[in-house]
Amino acid sequence: MQLSAFGHKFSAESGIVTLMEDLGEALNSNPDILFMGGGNPARIDALESLFQQRLNGLLEDKETRHSLLGIYQSPQGDSELLTHVAQLLKQQYGWNISARNVAISNGSQAAFFVLFNLFAGLQADGSRKRIQLPLAPEYLGYSDSGLSEPFFTATRPTLELLEGDAYGNPQFKYHVDFENLKVDTDSAALCVSRPTNPTGNVLTNEEVDKLDQLAKAQDIPLIIDGAYGTPFPNIIFESVQPHWNNNTILVLSLSKLGLPGARTGFVIAREEIIEAYTRANTILNLACGNLGTSLGKALVKQGDLLSCSNDIIRPFYQQRLDHALRCASESLAGISYKIHKPEGAIFLWLWFDQLRISSQTLYQKLKEQGLLVVPGEPFFVGIEEPWEHRQQCLRLSYAQSPGTVKEGFALLSRVIREYQ
Amino acid sequence: MQLSAFGHKFSAESGIVTLMEDLGEALNSNPDILFMGGGNPARIDALESLFQQRLNGLLEDKETRHSLLGIYQSPQGDSELLTHVAQLLKQQYGWNISARNVAISNGSQAAFFVLFNLFAGLQADGSRKRIQLPLAPEYLGYSDSGLSEPFFTATRPTLELLEGDAYGNPQFKYHVDFENLKVDTDSAALCVSRPTNPTGNVLTNEEVDKLDQLAKAQDIPLIIDGAYGTPFPNIIFESVQPHWNNNTILVLSLSKLGLPGARTGFVIAREEIIEAYTRANTILNLACGNLGTSLGKALVKQGDLLSCSNDIIRPFYQQRLDHALRCASESLAGISYKIHKPEGAIFLWLWFDQLRISSQTLYQKLKEQGLLVVPGEPFFVGIEEPWEHRQQCLRLSYAQSPGTVKEGFALLSRVIREYQ
Repeated sequence: MQLSAFGHKFSAESGIVTLMEDLGEALNSNPDILFMGGGNPARIDALESLFQQRLNGLLEDKETRHSLLGIYQSPQGDSELLTHVAQLLKQQYGWNISARNVAISNGSQAAFFVLFNLFAGLQADGSRKRIQLPLAPEYLGYSDSGLSEPFFTATRPTLELLEGDAYGNPQFKYHVDFENLKVDTDSAALCVSRPTNPTGNVLTNEEVDKLDQLAKAQDIPLIIDGAYGTPFPNIIFESVQPHWNNNTILVLSLSKLGLPGARTGFVIAREEIIEAYTRANTILNLACGNLGTSLGKALVKQGDLLSCSNDIIRPFYQQRLDHALRCASESLAGISYKIHKPEGAIFLWLWFDQLRISSQTLYQKLKEQGLLVVPGEPFFVGIEEPWEHRQQCLRLSYAQSPGTVKEGFALLSRVIREYQ
Repeated sequence: MQLSAFGHKFSAESGIVTLMEDLGEALNSNPDILFMGGGNPARIDALESLFQQRLNGLLEDKETRHSLLGIYQSPQGDSELLTHVAQLLKQQYGWNISARNVAISNGSQAAFFVLFNLFAGLQADGSRKRIQLPLAPEYLGYSDSGLSEPFFTATRPTLELLEGDAYGNPQFKYHVDFENLKVDTDSAALCVSRPTNPTGNVLTNEEVDKLDQLAKAQDIPLIIDGAYGTPFPNIIFESVQPHWNNNTILVLSLSKLGLPGARTGFVIAREEIIEAYTRANTILNLACGNLGTSLGKALVKQGDLLSCSNDIIRPFYQQRLDHALRCASESLAGISYKIHKPEGAIFLWLWFDQLRISSQTLYQKLKEQGLLVVPGEPFFVGIEEPWEHRQQCLRLSYAQSPGTVKEGFALLSRVIREYQ
């Protein structure tokens, strides 16, 4: 098979691909494995019932049925939904945006592929620029998306040791190391997920303001991945200020609202960026899928997006988080560990500073014993210098049932005691 | 805005983007315009009712509801659907394929972006290869999908003049010009749509066999775009042999079945190609949308895919085609025109050999007068030498209501008489 350079790069065994294949195989070969890997949102019956009602309503009416199934959405996205989303953001946060500042994507991943490559990589003048990740560990799904290499750069964060949480778990928190963060002509854009996948970190308002200023000074965009953020699904447990202005590209998603199967994301940016994104999206996809769009319109019109987020989703994950922290505290007593302060998203990021094996090896051991987690290494995207901390972390999802989480921590505790 | 090289290319005003923007604006500014542009399938109530029933069934059952909404499909696609599609093709045509030869895409366009770029463009050794289109005019949606330029090459077809059709329309048919078709080390893959969008041509069995041999001899794949082809939606009015073997990449779609909003395509190829496609798809999209997958499973399980195609869709378009040909014959009497023999798909390809203006200008005049068609030029993808025939053709969709088609031809007739 004679592949192109793109073909070689994109069909290679790479971070996200290998991990997803490995997770998939583990699940297939042992369906009873304790699953704390992956980013699948929790299954919340109340939400699925609501989505069902809304979809039934759409199917009953011949016109909404037709617009769900029988038409190509315009490349930027259905104009009614764009307007609704713009209004929602304007009302909630006072941002000066209209439908012309919003575009729809086939999920966040597809949006990031386009957005990253619009700015970074090979430039018209032959130079190369990179996406800069100011707070790695950062979402591993980004790591392979560049059309050329090197594509990312990241600055090692500072670590703040915090007081233990209410359950006695030792805590820490990453911060952007502004002293060592260099934004220069090699930078194509800054990108942060807020809340951060995998750590559950939520960048402070001050950090975001500083990043905004650095981006503006260099005339490059600040990209914020709000897959877990405000206003939906709002899986944030801290009170922080949402951020957007003309130099920000905010990406939202319906996935963590419980709709990963809809593959629907939103890009919020100034008009020229939306136009560039839309044209690229036309060539890549012709149009986005209508399930998230039709359902999204029904949800936003009836106020469900915010009420689901604030009244169901956030309290649900808050409860799951409390349970997970209690399990961690009970199971890990006597082990040297710290938990990144869980300020948002659906993961615990555990740091084992006395670990005698790499987290990659630990991941394999845990998998053999019946617990699936995600090793920390692949999340240190763009950090090139050696750093033993990279090999000492694990990401655990607490979206699963309380029983699974409890058993998972018990198993983790047994295995880890052998290796520290 | 500092865009990358990719950014410049993919956000430029290019063939498909400009056309889609222009079609969109025309529809917005004049919603009553006679619409014979675009590739939207006809709205067929019987089908939409059936889809509704199937979807209602999926929503009633908590498990199928959850797998529609709440999970990420695996990167290659839902294994149950892959198995069903493989079995369908095996049963229908005896092809030696399994689920490992099938992958799902977010519609054909997304599949072609990946497939084309897997093979063509910059190679690891610094050389460049192109996708070769043996029978241009070819689908214009391909034209901008290359990550580098030049990306396509095409050989001018031979024109066979045929006897008039049953309604007296003069006819012609394109054939692959094998004498001038050079498949060599610059070729990354051959690609044909069968039926051809825009012409309605269906490559003969002999043409496909010869292309297959040429591709094998050069050790490059033969890509067949079956968006309108067999076994679904089966909008083919000639009896021809479907083609697949280990060196073929067949791309199918649910769009022309009446489900463009589902954005669901299928890639059928040998295992190593499916693996490469799947990995690239993971990086670009993480997972495909579930609407087409869930509905597709219900349809294929209950035998609907074939019965809808053969009992509803093909007869429907056959009737629309007959009506369109009757309208053409009545309206265009006295004008010098020929129609490409309409062997499949949902378009008439009209050739006006005495036209004094370009088809691009004609398109603008028609739009001003209230008829939206698609000009022929952008479909001559990859043909670089001058050829006046390029400026003399129009693509008209006959998927719309008989009244629209009748009025459309009457308007076309009035305008064209001014310019020939």
